[in-house]
Amino acid sequence: MFYLLDIIGTMAFAMSGALTAMHKRLDPFGVFIIAFVTAVGGGTLRDVLIGRTPVGWMLDLKYVYVIILGFGLAVLFRKKFDKLRTSLFLFDTIGLGVFTLIGLEKGISIGLHPVICIALGTITACFGGVIRDILCTEIPTIFRREIYATICIFGGIVFFALQSLDLDKDILYLATSVVIISVRLMAVRFKWYLPALDHK
Amino acid sequence: MFYLLDIIGTMAFAMSGALTAMHKRLDPFGVFIIAFVTAVGGGTLRDVLIGRTPVGWMLDLKYVYVIILGFGLAVLFRKKFDKLRTSLFLFDTIGLGVFTLIGLEKGISIGLHPVICIALGTITACFGGVIRDILCTEIPTIFRREIYATICIFGGIVFFALQSLDLDKDILYLATSVVIISVRLMAVRFKWYLPALDHK
Amino acid sequence: MFYLLDIIGTMAFAMSGALTAMHKRLDPFGVFIIAFVTAVGGGTLRDVLIGRTPVGWMLDLKYVYVIILGFGLAVLFRKKFDKLRTSLFLFDTIGLGVFTLIGLEKGISIGLHPVICIALGTITACFGGVIRDILCTEIPTIFRREIYATICIFGGIVFFALQSLDLDKDILYLATSVVIISVRLMAVRFKWYLPALDHK
Repeated sequence: MFYLLDIIGTMAFAMSGALTAMHKRLDPFGVFIIAFVTAVGGGTLRDVLIGRTPVGWMLDLKYVYVIILGFGLAVLFRKKFDKLRTSLFLFDTIGLGVFTLIGLEKGISIGLHPVICIALGTITACFGGVIRDILCTEIPTIFRREIYATICIFGGIVFFALQSLDLDKDILYLATSVVIISVRLMAVRFKWYLPALDHK
Repeated sequence: MFYLLDIIGTMAFAMSGALTAMHKRLDPFGVFIIAFVTAVGGGTLRDVLIGRTPVGWMLDLKYVYVIILGFGLAVLFRKKFDKLRTSLFLFDTIGLGVFTLIGLEKGISIGLHPVICIALGTITACFGGVIRDILCTEIPTIFRREIYATICIFGGIVFFALQSLDLDKDILYLATSVVIISVRLMAVRFKWYLPALDHK
Repeated sequence: MFYLLDIIGTMAFAMSGALTAMHKRLDPFGVFIIAFVTAVGGGTLRDVLIGRTPVGWMLDLKYVYVIILGFGLAVLFRKKFDKLRTSLFLFDTIGLGVFTLIGLEKGISIGLHPVICIALGTITACFGGVIRDILCTEIPTIFRREIYATICIFGGIVFFALQSLDLDKDILYLATSVVIISVRLMAVRFKWYLPALDHK
């Protein structure tokens, strides 16, 4: 189940990357790289920072194949994207939940402090998008408009709060994902956002 | 003493990052990330390049707390920044000296060549600012206007020159910091800069 | 022979980086850093991703000296660049072939899957230029206009196809380089390019 959600999230991230790159009128190689980086960039940065090398996607080709598939679908259906917007948003939100959990878990598995584990969850879920925006020379979206990373941080806090209750691991994971996914859906539905800090 | 200077430098870098990010009108999460990256980005890049992982700030939460404090202060006093400009510049200059030394030391401790140690000192002191500027989609300031990195390189050369005189370690560190800090103060006072290379 | 080609490629990449940076009117330090990053950035990223640290150029100062030389030549002859364009393009193309092979080899030496080895070859040859463009706040050229990375991927496929024929290692390397270099020359001569994906 978790495995399937990881695949769905990876594909959604790859497709969102491909769509951003096509908007920037990149060539197919550029579109593929942006799709790739959006999908695995966060996890790659996490692995590099904790010294887990070769990084994940080099040892498990599943990710490469899923990204190629996501890239292909995004290219094929690029003119019908408007109709797919809702599904893609849903898959992307699943990715947000799953990737946060994967990042949290990696940090816990090597004994890092909860604050750092939450940082790793946020990096895993959000920094693929940051690298995507930098490669497209945009100031990263998540620094500007959307409540996105903040939800990962909140999800991480919920995770450690629930963990202290000695819940079953499956329930812990499920509850954290549900919290992240629901808050994200509500944030978009009710247009929650963080205001810019006015400095003058 | 050195420990205290490290804290002061980290906080100054975090505040300068936060101020840059507020100028770009980022949201609070974006401002925090830019503050974080400015403060520890150089050391993180250094650790990743030499394979010292998990990177420093993951193992010593002191940095996280100092950055949160610096971020908070920058946000609170953001409208009074003009009055604080001189103090902040002074703290930033202390950071430049201290971080260069920390980078030099890490390189020496794993037996790298002096040229590479000087590069590591410069990376530690300057590349947080480079990553900050890239995330804000600006061409890095230190590539354009200011004598900044050049001072770190000069400081590194002074360090190895003094080391060959068999000085006491404390004196060696103190002298190098004083050189870096004074040259930086003079560079700003007397408006020293490197001219752009005119290529046409 | 291979050693010499590695040097030629590194110098060509350093010069192309320096020229891009001078076009952006960076100061000498900025020009040097861009030259450095263009020359070793791809290999550095590869080393970081596979955990081969300290990264290559920290252990073999040859690269530092070659880059300093390339930087110096680019600065000295910056007003005569138009006459050198053809030689520089040729050297750059040699670099493309050699760096792809070096990346392939590193991947094979730690037992990674051929698909990942091809990715490592492409990263080694192309991502120095990507980092150069990002530091100059340009959308990376290789994502937009030129058949460049695609040739590395093609070269990697040829490499593994030939390897399955049990050829001598020297012949295998030579043949792969020749393929990469000739396809690149033809691509520029006959203006082959990948069209942008039209998404509306």
